[in-house]
Amino acid sequence: MPLVVVGSVAIDNVETPTQRRDNLLGGSATHFSVAASFFTGVRLVGVVGSDWPEEHTQMLISRGIDTSGLHVVEDGKTFTWTGRYLPNMNDRETLDVQLNVFGEFDPVLPESYKRAKYVFLANGVPGVQMKVLSQVPGRRLAVADTMDLWINTMRGDLDKLLGELDGLVLNDAEAKLLTGSENLVAAGKAVQEMGPKFVIIKKGEHGAMFFGEHETYVMPAFPTPRVIDPTGAGDSFAGGMMGYLAEQDAFDPETLKTAMAYGVVVASFNVEGFGLERMHEVGREDIDKRMDAFRKMLSF
Amino acid sequence: MPLVVVGSVAIDNVETPTQRRDNLLGGSATHFSVAASFFTGVRLVGVVGSDWPEEHTQMLISRGIDTSGLHVVEDGKTFTWTGRYLPNMNDRETLDVQLNVFGEFDPVLPESYKRAKYVFLANGVPGVQMKVLSQVPGRRLAVADTMDLWINTMRGDLDKLLGELDGLVLNDAEAKLLTGSENLVAAGKAVQEMGPKFVIIKKGEHGAMFFGEHETYVMPAFPTPRVIDPTGAGDSFAGGMMGYLAEQDAFDPETLKTAMAYGVVVASFNVEGFGLERMHEVGREDIDKRMDAFRKMLSF
Repeated sequence: MPLVVVGSVAIDNVETPTQRRDNLLGGSATHFSVAASFFTGVRLVGVVGSDWPEEHTQMLISRGIDTSGLHVVEDGKTFTWTGRYLPNMNDRETLDVQLNVFGEFDPVLPESYKRAKYVFLANGVPGVQMKVLSQVPGRRLAVADTMDLWINTMRGDLDKLLGELDGLVLNDAEAKLLTGSENLVAAGKAVQEMGPKFVIIKKGEHGAMFFGEHETYVMPAFPTPRVIDPTGAGDSFAGGMMGYLAEQDAFDPETLKTAMAYGVVVASFNVEGFGLERMHEVGREDIDKRMDAFRKMLSF
Repeated sequence: MPLVVVGSVAIDNVETPTQRRDNLLGGSATHFSVAASFFTGVRLVGVVGSDWPEEHTQMLISRGIDTSGLHVVEDGKTFTWTGRYLPNMNDRETLDVQLNVFGEFDPVLPESYKRAKYVFLANGVPGVQMKVLSQVPGRRLAVADTMDLWINTMRGDLDKLLGELDGLVLNDAEAKLLTGSENLVAAGKAVQEMGPKFVIIKKGEHGAMFFGEHETYVMPAFPTPRVIDPTGAGDSFAGGMMGYLAEQDAFDPETLKTAMAYGVVVASFNVEGFGLERMHEVGREDIDKRMDAFRKMLSF
Protein backbone atom coordinates (compact mmCIF):
# COMPACT_ATOMS: atom_id res chain seq x y z
CA MET A 1 0.00 0.00 0.00
CA PRO A 2 1.46 3.35 -0.89
CA LEU A 3 2.37 5.66 1.93
CA VAL A 4 2.27 9.45 1.83
CA VAL A 5 4.67 11.51 3.92
CA VAL A 6 4.54 15.28 4.31
CA GLY A 7 7.42 17.11 5.95
CA SER A 8 10.72 18.88 5.67
CA VAL A 9 13.36 18.27 3.04
CA ALA A 10 16.60 19.92 4.07
CA ILE A 11 20.31 20.36 3.79
CA ASP A 12 22.03 19.53 7.09
CA ASN A 13 25.40 20.49 8.49
CA VAL A 14 26.30 18.16 11.33
CA GLU A 15 29.05 18.44 13.91
CA THR A 16 29.92 15.56 16.23
CA PRO A 17 32.69 15.43 18.85
CA THR A 18 35.03 13.96 16.22
CA GLN A 19 33.88 15.18 12.80
CA ARG A 20 31.96 17.83 10.89
CA ARG A 21 30.09 17.19 7.66
CA ASP A 22 28.35 19.81 5.55
CA ASN A 23 25.69 19.67 2.85
CA LEU A 24 24.15 16.39 3.89
CA LEU A 25 20.77 15.44 2.51
CA GLY A 26 18.44 15.78 5.50
CA GLY A 27 14.95 16.69 6.63
CA SER A 28 12.26 14.68 8.36
CA ALA A 29 10.40 13.63 5.21
CA THR A 30 13.64 12.56 3.56
CA HIS A 31 14.81 10.34 6.42
CA PHE A 32 11.29 8.95 6.73
CA SER A 33 10.98 8.24 2.99
CA VAL A 34 14.29 6.46 2.66
CA ALA A 35 13.53 4.31 5.73
CA ALA A 36 10.02 3.44 4.50
CA SER A 37 11.28 2.68 0.99
CA PHE A 38 12.73 -0.63 2.22
CA PHE A 39 9.13 -1.78 2.64
CA THR A 40 6.74 0.05 0.32
CA GLY A 41 6.25 2.74 -2.31
CA VAL A 42 6.48 6.20 -0.78
CA ARG A 43 4.92 9.45 -2.00
CA LEU A 44 6.84 12.43 -0.74
CA VAL A 45 5.39 15.91 -0.23
CA GLY A 46 7.88 18.66 0.50
CA VAL A 47 9.39 21.89 -0.74
CA VAL A 48 12.92 22.86 -1.79
CA GLY A 49 14.62 25.83 -3.41
CA SER A 50 16.34 26.20 -6.76
CA ASP A 51 19.64 25.36 -5.03
CA TRP A 52 18.40 21.79 -4.54
CA PRO A 53 20.76 19.33 -6.23
CA GLU A 54 18.89 17.31 -8.83
CA GLU A 55 20.98 14.25 -7.88
CA HIS A 56 19.12 14.07 -4.56
CA THR A 57 15.80 13.81 -6.41
CA GLN A 58 17.28 11.12 -8.64
CA MET A 59 18.44 9.16 -5.59
CA LEU A 60 14.93 9.29 -4.07
CA ILE A 61 13.37 8.17 -7.37
CA SER A 62 15.86 5.32 -7.62
CA ARG A 63 14.49 4.05 -4.28
CA GLY A 64 10.93 3.99 -5.56
CA ILE A 65 10.00 7.27 -3.89
CA ASP A 66 7.51 9.33 -5.88
CA THR A 67 8.77 12.92 -5.89
CA SER A 68 5.94 14.46 -7.88
CA GLY A 69 4.87 16.10 -4.61
CA LEU A 70 8.30 17.68 -4.09
CA HIS A 71 7.73 21.30 -5.03
CA VAL A 72 10.71 23.34 -6.28
CA VAL A 73 10.43 27.10 -5.61
CA GLU A 74 12.34 29.07 -8.25
CA ASP A 75 14.64 31.66 -6.68
CA GLY A 76 13.98 30.10 -3.28
CA LYS A 77 16.51 28.46 -0.98
CA THR A 78 16.21 25.06 0.64
CA PHE A 79 15.71 24.72 4.40
CA THR A 80 19.06 24.25 6.13
CA TRP A 81 19.80 23.01 9.64
CA THR A 82 23.14 23.08 11.41
CA GLY A 83 23.58 21.23 14.67
CA ARG A 84 26.16 19.90 17.07
CA TYR A 85 25.98 16.68 19.08
CA LEU A 86 27.21 16.60 22.65
CA PRO A 87 29.73 13.91 23.65
CA ASN A 88 26.92 11.53 24.71
CA MET A 89 25.70 11.58 21.04
CA ASN A 90 22.11 11.69 22.30
CA ASP A 91 21.68 15.38 23.12
CA ARG A 92 22.32 18.11 20.57
CA GLU A 93 22.21 21.84 20.14
CA THR A 94 20.95 23.65 17.07
CA LEU A 95 23.59 26.09 15.84
CA ASP A 96 21.63 27.56 12.95
CA VAL A 97 18.26 27.16 11.23
CA GLN A 98 17.34 28.76 7.91
CA LEU A 99 13.73 27.82 7.22
CA ASN A 100 13.82 29.46 3.77
CA VAL A 101 11.12 28.00 1.49
CA PHE A 102 9.98 25.59 4.23
CA GLY A 103 8.76 28.63 6.21
CA GLU A 104 5.97 29.07 3.66
CA PHE A 105 5.28 25.37 3.20
CA ASP A 106 1.66 24.92 2.15
CA PRO A 107 1.46 21.30 1.09
CA VAL A 108 -0.84 20.50 -1.81
CA LEU A 109 -1.06 16.81 -2.57
CA PRO A 110 -0.92 15.71 -6.22
CA GLU A 111 -4.19 14.04 -7.30
CA SER A 112 -2.55 10.61 -7.39
CA TYR A 113 -1.59 10.94 -3.69
CA LYS A 114 -5.09 11.72 -2.45
CA ARG A 115 -6.27 8.14 -2.44
CA ALA A 116 -3.46 7.14 -0.07
CA LYS A 117 -4.45 4.89 2.80
CA TYR A 118 -1.35 5.44 4.94
CA VAL A 119 -0.28 8.97 5.84
CA PHE A 120 2.55 10.29 7.98
CA LEU A 121 2.69 13.94 8.98
CA ALA A 122 6.27 14.63 9.95
CA ASN A 123 6.82 17.38 12.53
CA GLY A 124 5.28 20.64 11.32
CA VAL A 125 2.75 23.37 12.14
CA PRO A 126 -0.36 21.56 13.49
CA GLY A 127 -2.69 23.68 11.31
CA VAL A 128 -0.77 22.65 8.21
CA GLN A 129 -0.76 18.99 9.31
CA MET A 130 -4.55 19.26 9.69
CA LYS A 131 -4.88 20.72 6.18
CA VAL A 132 -3.01 17.71 4.80
CA LEU A 133 -5.42 15.33 6.54
CA SER A 134 -8.36 17.02 4.86
CA GLN A 135 -6.80 16.12 1.49
CA VAL A 136 -6.82 12.36 2.24
CA PRO A 137 -10.35 11.73 3.47
CA GLY A 138 -10.22 8.03 2.59
CA ARG A 139 -7.13 7.30 4.72
CA ARG A 140 -6.98 4.22 6.90
CA LEU A 141 -4.13 5.27 9.16
CA ALA A 142 -2.82 8.76 9.90
CA VAL A 143 0.15 9.21 12.21
CA ALA A 144 1.88 12.48 13.10
CA ASP A 145 5.00 13.73 14.83
CA THR A 146 5.13 17.02 16.72
CA MET A 147 7.56 19.12 18.79
CA ASP A 148 7.91 21.37 21.85
CA LEU A 149 7.46 24.56 19.78
CA TRP A 150 3.90 23.62 18.78
CA ILE A 151 3.05 22.31 22.24
CA ASN A 152 4.07 25.69 23.66
CA THR A 153 2.67 28.00 20.98
CA MET A 154 -0.14 26.24 19.10
CA ARG A 155 -1.77 24.07 21.72
CA GLY A 156 -5.32 24.70 20.46
CA ASP A 157 -4.48 23.56 16.92
CA LEU A 158 -2.50 20.64 18.26
CA ASP A 159 -5.42 19.49 20.44
CA LYS A 160 -7.69 19.54 17.38
CA LEU A 161 -5.15 17.53 15.42
CA LEU A 162 -4.88 14.94 18.21
CA GLY A 163 -8.60 14.29 17.85
CA GLU A 164 -8.12 13.36 14.18
CA LEU A 165 -5.07 11.15 14.46
CA ASP A 166 -4.76 7.41 14.66
CA GLY A 167 -1.26 7.68 16.07
CA LEU A 168 1.09 10.27 17.52
CA VAL A 169 4.87 9.95 17.74
CA LEU A 170 6.77 12.32 20.03
CA ASN A 171 9.88 12.29 22.17
CA ASP A 172 10.13 11.90 25.94
CA ALA A 173 10.64 15.58 26.75
CA GLU A 174 7.68 16.51 24.52
CA ALA A 175 5.42 13.95 26.19
CA LYS A 176 6.30 15.37 29.60
CA LEU A 177 5.70 18.92 28.34
CA LEU A 178 2.36 18.01 26.77
CA THR A 179 1.02 16.31 29.90
CA GLY A 180 2.88 17.84 32.81
CA SER A 181 3.71 14.32 33.97
CA GLU A 182 7.30 13.35 34.75
CA ASN A 183 6.49 9.63 34.62
CA LEU A 184 6.65 8.51 30.99
CA VAL A 185 4.17 5.67 31.47
CA ALA A 186 1.62 8.08 32.93
CA ALA A 187 2.47 10.68 30.26
CA GLY A 188 1.99 8.23 27.40
CA LYS A 189 -1.39 7.14 28.73
CA ALA A 190 -2.43 10.76 29.21
CA VAL A 191 -1.50 11.66 25.62
CA GLN A 192 -3.40 8.64 24.37
CA GLU A 193 -6.48 9.92 26.20
CA MET A 194 -6.20 13.21 24.28
CA GLY A 195 -7.35 11.48 21.11
CA PRO A 196 -4.89 9.27 19.24
CA LYS A 197 -5.63 5.54 19.20
CA PHE A 198 -1.97 4.97 19.94
CA VAL A 199 0.99 7.01 21.12
CA ILE A 200 4.67 6.25 20.73
CA ILE A 201 7.21 8.00 22.94
CA LYS A 202 10.71 8.01 21.44
CA LYS A 203 13.55 7.87 23.97
CA GLY A 204 16.55 8.18 21.64
CA GLU A 205 19.29 5.74 22.61
CA HIS A 206 16.90 4.21 25.17
CA GLY A 207 14.31 3.03 22.65
CA ALA A 208 10.59 3.72 22.51
CA MET A 209 7.36 3.13 24.44
CA PHE A 210 3.99 2.22 22.97
CA PHE A 211 0.59 3.12 24.44
CA GLY A 212 -2.51 1.68 22.82
CA GLU A 213 -6.09 1.33 23.92
CA HIS A 214 -5.39 -1.94 25.70
CA GLU A 215 -1.64 -2.21 26.00
CA THR A 216 1.55 -0.51 27.03
CA TYR A 217 4.98 -1.75 26.11
CA VAL A 218 8.58 -0.68 25.84
CA MET A 219 11.25 -1.59 23.34
CA PRO A 220 14.93 -0.80 23.80
CA ALA A 221 16.99 0.66 20.97
CA PHE A 222 19.05 -1.90 19.07
CA PRO A 223 22.50 -1.68 20.69
CA THR A 224 24.97 -0.52 18.08
CA PRO A 225 28.49 0.50 19.11
CA ARG A 226 28.80 2.61 15.95
CA VAL A 227 26.83 5.81 16.52
CA ILE A 228 28.15 8.26 13.93
CA ASP A 229 25.26 10.72 13.45
CA PRO A 230 21.89 10.39 15.20
CA THR A 231 20.22 12.97 12.93
CA GLY A 232 16.99 11.59 11.53
CA ALA A 233 16.88 8.60 13.90
CA GLY A 234 13.33 9.44 15.00
CA ASP A 235 12.13 9.94 11.43
CA SER A 236 13.76 6.76 10.18
CA PHE A 237 12.16 4.95 13.13
CA ALA A 238 8.76 6.29 12.02
CA GLY A 239 9.58 5.47 8.38
CA GLY A 240 10.51 1.88 9.14
CA MET A 241 7.39 1.45 11.24
CA MET A 242 4.93 3.07 8.82
CA GLY A 243 6.61 1.42 5.84
CA TYR A 244 6.05 -2.00 7.38
CA LEU A 245 2.42 -1.21 8.27
CA ALA A 246 1.73 -0.02 4.71
CA GLU A 247 3.47 -3.10 3.29
CA GLN A 248 1.33 -5.38 5.47
CA ASP A 249 -1.74 -3.19 5.00
CA ALA A 250 -2.63 -3.90 8.62
CA PHE A 251 -2.32 -2.22 12.00
CA ASP A 252 -3.72 -4.70 14.48
CA PRO A 253 -1.81 -4.86 17.80
CA GLU A 254 0.56 -7.65 16.71
CA THR A 255 1.43 -5.96 13.41
CA LEU A 256 1.94 -2.64 15.20
CA LYS A 257 4.41 -4.23 17.59
CA THR A 258 6.39 -5.87 14.79
CA ALA A 259 6.30 -2.55 12.90
CA MET A 260 7.72 -0.75 15.92
CA ALA A 261 10.55 -3.28 16.11
CA TYR A 262 11.29 -2.72 12.42
CA GLY A 263 11.36 1.01 13.13
CA VAL A 264 13.92 0.46 15.90
CA VAL A 265 16.08 -1.67 13.61
CA VAL A 266 15.96 0.73 10.65
CA ALA A 267 16.81 3.65 12.96
CA SER A 268 19.81 1.71 14.28
CA PHE A 269 21.23 1.60 10.74
CA ASN A 270 20.43 5.29 10.14
CA VAL A 271 22.67 6.40 13.04
CA GLU A 272 25.63 4.35 11.79
CA GLY A 273 26.60 6.94 9.17
CA PHE A 274 26.31 10.67 8.46
CA GLY A 275 22.99 11.75 6.96
CA LEU A 276 21.64 8.91 4.85
CA GLU A 277 25.01 7.37 3.97
CA ARG A 278 24.60 4.15 5.91
CA MET A 279 21.04 3.68 4.62
CA HIS A 280 22.42 3.42 1.11
CA GLU A 281 24.72 0.58 2.12
CA VAL A 282 22.06 -1.71 3.53
CA GLY A 283 19.20 -3.68 2.01
CA ARG A 284 16.06 -5.36 3.24
CA GLU A 285 18.03 -8.53 3.94
CA ASP A 286 20.33 -6.65 6.36
CA ILE A 287 17.27 -5.24 8.09
CA ASP A 288 15.66 -8.66 8.40
CA LYS A 289 18.89 -10.15 9.71
CA ARG A 290 19.18 -7.48 12.42
CA MET A 291 15.47 -7.89 13.13
CA ASP A 292 16.08 -11.59 13.83
CA ALA A 293 18.93 -10.69 16.17
CA PHE A 294 16.72 -8.13 17.92
CA ARG A 295 13.92 -10.67 18.33
CA LYS A 296 16.33 -13.25 19.74
CA MET A 297 17.87 -10.65 22.07
CA LEU A 298 14.48 -9.97 23.64
CA SER A 299 13.32 -13.53 24.06
CA PHE A 300 13.93 -15.33 27.33
CA MET B 1 21.61 -22.97 46.31
CA PRO B 2 22.26 -20.48 49.10
CA LEU B 3 23.44 -17.05 48.14
CA VAL B 4 25.72 -14.83 50.20
CA VAL B 5 25.45 -11.06 50.01
CA VAL B 6 27.84 -8.63 51.64
CA GLY B 7 27.00 -4.94 51.79
CA SER B 8 25.38 -2.06 53.59
CA VAL B 9 22.42 -2.27 55.93
CA ALA B 10 21.05 1.19 56.57
CA ILE B 11 18.34 3.50 57.73
CA ASP B 12 17.15 5.73 54.88
CA ASN B 13 15.33 9.04 54.88
CA VAL B 14 13.80 9.65 51.48
CA GLU B 15 12.31 12.79 50.00
CA THR B 16 10.38 12.73 46.72
CA PRO B 17 8.64 15.67 45.02
CA THR B 18 5.43 14.77 46.85
CA GLN B 19 6.38 13.04 50.12
CA ARG B 20 9.07 12.55 52.73
CA ARG B 21 9.56 9.36 54.72
CA ASP B 22 12.04 8.83 57.52
CA ASN B 23 13.54 5.76 59.19
CA LEU B 24 13.01 3.38 56.28
CA LEU B 25 14.85 0.09 56.29
CA GLY B 26 17.45 0.49 53.54
CA GLY B 27 20.94 -0.41 52.42
CA SER B 28 22.22 -2.32 49.44
CA ALA B 29 22.47 -5.72 51.15
CA THR B 30 18.96 -5.33 52.57
CA HIS B 31 17.29 -4.52 49.24
CA PHE B 32 19.31 -7.28 47.61
CA SER B 33 18.41 -9.86 50.27
CA VAL B 34 14.70 -9.18 50.22
CA ALA B 35 14.63 -9.33 46.41
CA ALA B 36 16.63 -12.55 46.30
CA SER B 37 14.52 -14.14 49.04
CA PHE B 38 11.67 -14.69 46.55
CA PHE B 39 13.92 -17.29 44.92
CA THR B 40 16.41 -18.78 47.34
CA GLY B 41 17.86 -18.80 50.84
CA VAL B 42 20.01 -15.73 51.45
CA ARG B 43 22.90 -15.30 53.88
CA LEU B 44 23.39 -11.68 54.76
CA VAL B 45 26.66 -10.12 55.89
CA GLY B 46 26.47 -6.57 57.20
CA VAL B 47 26.92 -4.36 60.23
CA VAL B 48 24.52 -2.24 62.25
CA GLY B 49 24.61 -0.26 65.50
CA SER B 50 22.84 -0.79 68.78
CA ASP B 51 20.09 1.55 67.54
CA TRP B 52 19.06 -1.11 65.03
CA PRO B 53 15.43 -2.11 65.58
CA GLU B 54 15.19 -5.82 66.30
CA GLU B 55 11.94 -5.97 64.29
CA HIS B 56 13.97 -5.45 61.10
CA THR B 57 16.05 -8.52 61.87
CA GLN B 58 12.88 -10.48 62.59
CA MET B 59 11.42 -9.41 59.26
CA LEU B 60 14.55 -10.59 57.42
CA ILE B 61 14.48 -13.91 59.25
CA SER B 62 10.79 -14.35 58.41
CA ARG B 63 11.76 -14.18 54.73
CA GLY B 64 14.29 -16.98 55.08
CA ILE B 65 17.25 -14.64 55.26
CA ASP B 66 20.03 -15.89 57.51
CA THR B 67 21.16 -12.95 59.64
CA SER B 68 23.90 -14.71 61.58
CA GLY B 69 26.33 -12.61 59.52
CA LEU B 70 24.67 -9.35 60.56
CA HIS B 71 27.05 -7.94 63.14
CA VAL B 72 25.67 -5.60 65.81
CA VAL B 73 28.21 -3.11 67.19
CA GLU B 74 27.36 -2.17 70.76
CA ASP B 75 27.39 1.61 71.28
CA GLY B 76 27.65 2.06 67.51
CA LYS B 77 25.16 3.76 65.22
CA THR B 78 23.70 2.31 62.03
CA PHE B 79 24.63 3.78 58.64
CA THR B 80 22.05 6.40 57.60
CA TRP B 81 21.42 7.92 54.19
CA THR B 82 19.18 10.85 53.40
CA GLY B 83 18.39 11.68 49.80
CA ARG B 84 16.05 13.65 47.61
CA TYR B 85 14.70 12.61 44.21
CA LEU B 86 14.37 15.16 41.43
CA PRO B 87 11.00 15.50 39.69
CA ASN B 88 12.02 12.95 37.02
CA MET B 89 12.30 10.35 39.85
CA ASN B 90 15.42 8.96 38.17
CA ASP B 91 18.08 11.41 39.35
CA ARG B 92 18.71 12.12 43.02
CA GLU B 93 20.89 14.12 45.34
CA THR B 94 22.35 12.89 48.59
CA LEU B 95 21.47 15.29 51.40
CA ASP B 96 23.31 13.52 54.19
CA VAL B 97 25.39 10.40 54.78
CA GLN B 98 26.40 9.09 58.19
CA LEU B 99 28.57 6.02 57.59
CA ASN B 100 28.78 5.27 61.32
CA VAL B 101 29.59 1.58 61.92
CA PHE B 102 29.61 0.87 58.17
CA GLY B 103 32.72 3.06 57.88
CA GLU B 104 34.70 0.35 59.72
CA PHE B 105 32.97 -2.58 58.02
CA ASP B 106 35.35 -5.53 57.96
CA PRO B 107 33.17 -8.43 56.89
CA VAL B 108 33.97 -11.78 58.44
CA LEU B 109 31.83 -14.60 57.10
CA PRO B 110 30.37 -17.11 59.56
CA GLU B 111 31.75 -20.62 58.96
CA SER B 112 28.43 -21.82 57.54
CA TYR B 113 28.58 -19.11 54.85
CA LYS B 114 32.03 -20.03 53.57
CA ARG B 115 30.87 -22.92 51.45
CA ALA B 116 28.52 -20.64 49.49
CA LYS B 117 28.53 -21.09 45.73
CA TYR B 118 26.82 -17.80 44.84
CA VAL B 119 28.22 -14.53 46.14
CA PHE B 120 27.19 -10.93 45.61
CA LEU B 121 29.41 -8.08 46.71
CA ALA B 122 27.20 -5.03 46.96
CA ASN B 123 28.87 -1.68 46.38
CA GLY B 124 31.77 -1.21 48.79
CA VAL B 125 35.51 -0.59 49.08
CA PRO B 126 37.18 -2.82 46.42
CA GLY B 127 39.81 -4.02 48.88
CA VAL B 128 37.10 -5.17 51.29
CA GLN B 129 35.18 -6.84 48.45
CA MET B 130 38.38 -8.69 47.56
CA LYS B 131 38.80 -9.82 51.17
CA VAL B 132 35.32 -11.31 51.10
CA LEU B 133 36.14 -13.28 47.95
CA SER B 134 39.13 -14.85 49.69
CA GLN B 135 36.71 -16.26 52.28
CA VAL B 136 34.66 -18.17 49.69
CA PRO B 137 37.32 -19.99 47.67
CA GLY B 138 34.86 -22.66 46.47
CA ARG B 139 32.43 -20.18 44.91
CA ARG B 140 30.91 -20.83 41.51
CA LEU B 141 29.71 -17.32 40.72
CA ALA B 142 30.87 -14.01 42.20
CA VAL B 143 29.26 -10.78 41.07
CA ALA B 144 29.99 -7.29 42.39
CA ASP B 145 28.61 -3.79 42.19
CA THR B 146 30.80 -0.69 42.38
CA MET B 147 30.52 3.12 42.23
CA ASP B 148 32.16 6.30 40.95
CA LEU B 149 34.00 6.92 44.25
CA TRP B 150 36.04 3.71 43.92
CA ILE B 151 36.62 4.22 40.21
CA ASN B 152 38.07 7.64 40.99
CA THR B 153 40.01 6.85 44.16
CA MET B 154 40.83 3.11 44.27
CA ARG B 155 41.33 2.20 40.65
CA GLY B 156 44.24 -0.15 41.35
CA ASP B 157 42.24 -2.22 43.84
CA LEU B 158 39.23 -2.16 41.57
CA ASP B 159 41.28 -3.43 38.62
CA LYS B 160 42.51 -6.33 40.74
CA LEU B 161 38.94 -7.12 41.79
CA LEU B 162 37.76 -7.07 38.16
CA GLY B 163 40.21 -9.85 37.41
CA GLU B 164 38.60 -12.07 40.07
CA LEU B 165 34.93 -11.49 39.26
CA ASP B 166 32.53 -13.50 37.17
CA GLY B 167 30.22 -10.53 36.78
CA LEU B 168 30.17 -6.80 37.40
CA VAL B 169 27.05 -4.65 37.77
CA LEU B 170 27.39 -0.88 37.48
CA ASN B 171 25.34 2.06 36.27
CA ASP B 172 25.65 3.94 32.99
CA ALA B 173 27.56 6.93 34.35
CA GLU B 174 30.00 4.60 36.12
CA ALA B 175 30.59 2.56 32.97
CA LYS B 176 31.41 5.75 31.06
CA LEU B 177 33.72 6.91 33.85
CA LEU B 178 35.50 3.56 34.06
CA THR B 179 36.16 3.37 30.31
CA GLY B 180 36.15 6.95 29.05
CA SER B 181 33.66 5.86 26.39
CA GLU B 182 30.42 7.80 25.91
CA ASN B 183 28.84 4.97 23.91
CA LEU B 184 27.37 2.47 26.36
CA VAL B 185 27.74 -0.48 24.00
CA ALA B 186 31.43 0.26 23.57
CA ALA B 187 31.77 0.96 27.31
CA GLY B 188 30.15 -2.34 28.29
CA LYS B 189 32.43 -4.30 25.98
CA ALA B 190 35.47 -2.43 27.29
CA VAL B 191 34.58 -3.21 30.93
CA GLN B 192 34.06 -6.85 30.02
CA GLU B 193 37.60 -6.92 28.59
CA MET B 194 38.93 -5.72 31.96
CA GLY B 195 38.20 -9.13 33.45
CA PRO B 196 34.61 -10.03 34.32
CA LYS B 197 32.99 -12.77 32.26
CA PHE B 198 29.92 -10.58 32.03
CA VAL B 199 29.02 -6.96 32.69
CA ILE B 200 25.61 -5.47 33.30
CA ILE B 201 25.07 -1.74 32.88
CA LYS B 202 22.05 -0.46 34.79
CA LYS B 203 20.22 2.46 33.14
CA GLY B 204 17.60 3.19 35.83
CA GLU B 205 14.20 3.79 34.25
CA HIS B 206 15.65 2.79 30.88
CA GLY B 207 16.51 -0.78 31.86
CA ALA B 208 19.81 -2.62 31.61
CA MET B 209 22.37 -3.86 29.09
CA PHE B 210 24.21 -7.18 29.20
CA PHE B 211 27.69 -7.85 27.81
CA GLY B 212 28.97 -11.40 27.79
CA GLU B 213 31.80 -13.16 26.05
CA HIS B 214 29.66 -13.82 22.99
CA GLU B 215 26.62 -11.65 23.29
CA THR B 216 25.29 -8.18 23.94
CA TYR B 217 21.70 -7.39 24.67
CA VAL B 218 19.45 -4.76 26.16
CA MET B 219 16.35 -5.04 28.26
CA PRO B 220 14.00 -2.15 29.02
CA ALA B 221 12.70 -1.52 32.52
CA PHE B 222 9.22 -2.89 33.14
CA PRO B 223 6.96 0.13 32.57
CA THR B 224 5.19 0.92 35.82
CA PRO B 225 3.21 4.16 36.16
CA ARG B 226 3.59 3.99 39.95
CA VAL B 227 7.14 5.09 40.78
CA ILE B 228 7.04 6.01 44.47
CA ASP B 229 10.66 5.56 45.61
CA PRO B 230 13.47 4.31 43.34
CA THR B 231 15.85 3.71 46.27
CA GLY B 232 17.31 0.23 46.07
CA ALA B 233 16.09 -0.44 42.52
CA GLY B 234 19.58 -1.42 41.38
CA ASP B 235 20.13 -3.69 44.38
CA SER B 236 16.75 -5.35 44.05
CA PHE B 237 17.52 -5.86 40.34
CA ALA B 238 20.75 -7.60 41.33
CA GLY B 239 18.92 -9.54 44.06
CA GLY B 240 16.23 -10.81 41.70
CA MET B 241 18.85 -11.80 39.16
CA MET B 242 21.25 -13.53 41.57
CA GLY B 243 18.38 -15.11 43.47
CA TYR B 244 17.12 -16.75 40.29
CA LEU B 245 20.61 -17.92 39.29
CA ALA B 246 21.14 -19.46 42.73
CA GLU B 247 17.70 -21.07 42.61
CA GLN B 248 18.46 -22.59 39.21
CA ASP B 249 22.08 -23.30 40.17
CA ALA B 250 23.07 -22.35 36.63
CA PHE B 251 24.47 -19.36 34.78
CA ASP B 252 24.58 -20.41 31.14
CA PRO B 253 23.63 -17.64 28.68
CA GLU B 254 19.90 -18.54 28.56
CA THR B 255 19.58 -18.72 32.35
CA LEU B 256 21.48 -15.44 32.70
CA LYS B 257 19.05 -13.71 30.35
CA THR B 258 16.01 -15.03 32.19
CA ALA B 259 17.66 -14.02 35.48
CA MET B 260 18.19 -10.50 34.19
CA ALA B 261 14.51 -10.28 33.24
CA TYR B 262 13.54 -11.46 36.75
CA GLY B 263 15.82 -8.74 38.11
CA VAL B 264 14.01 -6.12 36.02
CA VAL B 265 10.62 -7.35 37.21
CA VAL B 266 11.56 -7.51 40.90
CA ALA B 267 13.05 -4.00 40.69
CA SER B 268 9.81 -2.73 39.15
CA PHE B 269 7.96 -3.82 42.29
CA ASN B 270 10.63 -2.35 44.56
CA VAL B 271 10.08 1.18 43.18
CA GLU B 272 6.31 1.00 43.70
CA GLY B 273 6.57 1.79 47.39
CA PHE B 274 8.84 3.54 49.90
CA GLY B 275 11.78 1.48 51.08
CA LEU B 276 10.78 -2.19 51.08
CA GLU B 277 7.06 -1.63 51.64
CA ARG B 278 5.87 -2.84 48.26
CA MET B 279 8.13 -5.88 48.41
CA HIS B 280 6.22 -7.09 51.45
CA GLU B 281 2.93 -6.93 49.55
CA VAL B 282 3.94 -9.17 46.65
CA GLY B 283 4.73 -12.85 46.33
CA ARG B 284 6.47 -15.09 43.86
CA GLU B 285 3.17 -15.51 41.96
CA ASP B 286 2.96 -11.72 41.38
CA ILE B 287 6.53 -11.74 40.12
CA ASP B 288 5.84 -14.63 37.77
CA LYS B 289 2.69 -12.96 36.49
CA ARG B 290 4.55 -9.73 35.72
CA MET B 291 7.36 -11.81 34.22
CA ASP B 292 4.84 -13.34 31.80
CA ALA B 293 3.58 -9.88 30.87
CA PHE B 294 7.16 -8.70 30.35
CA ARG B 295 7.96 -11.68 28.15
CA LYS B 296 4.81 -11.10 26.08
CA MET B 297 5.59 -7.39 25.82
CA LEU B 298 8.94 -8.15 24.22
CA SER B 299 7.83 -10.81 21.78
CA PHE B 300 6.93 -9.80 18.25
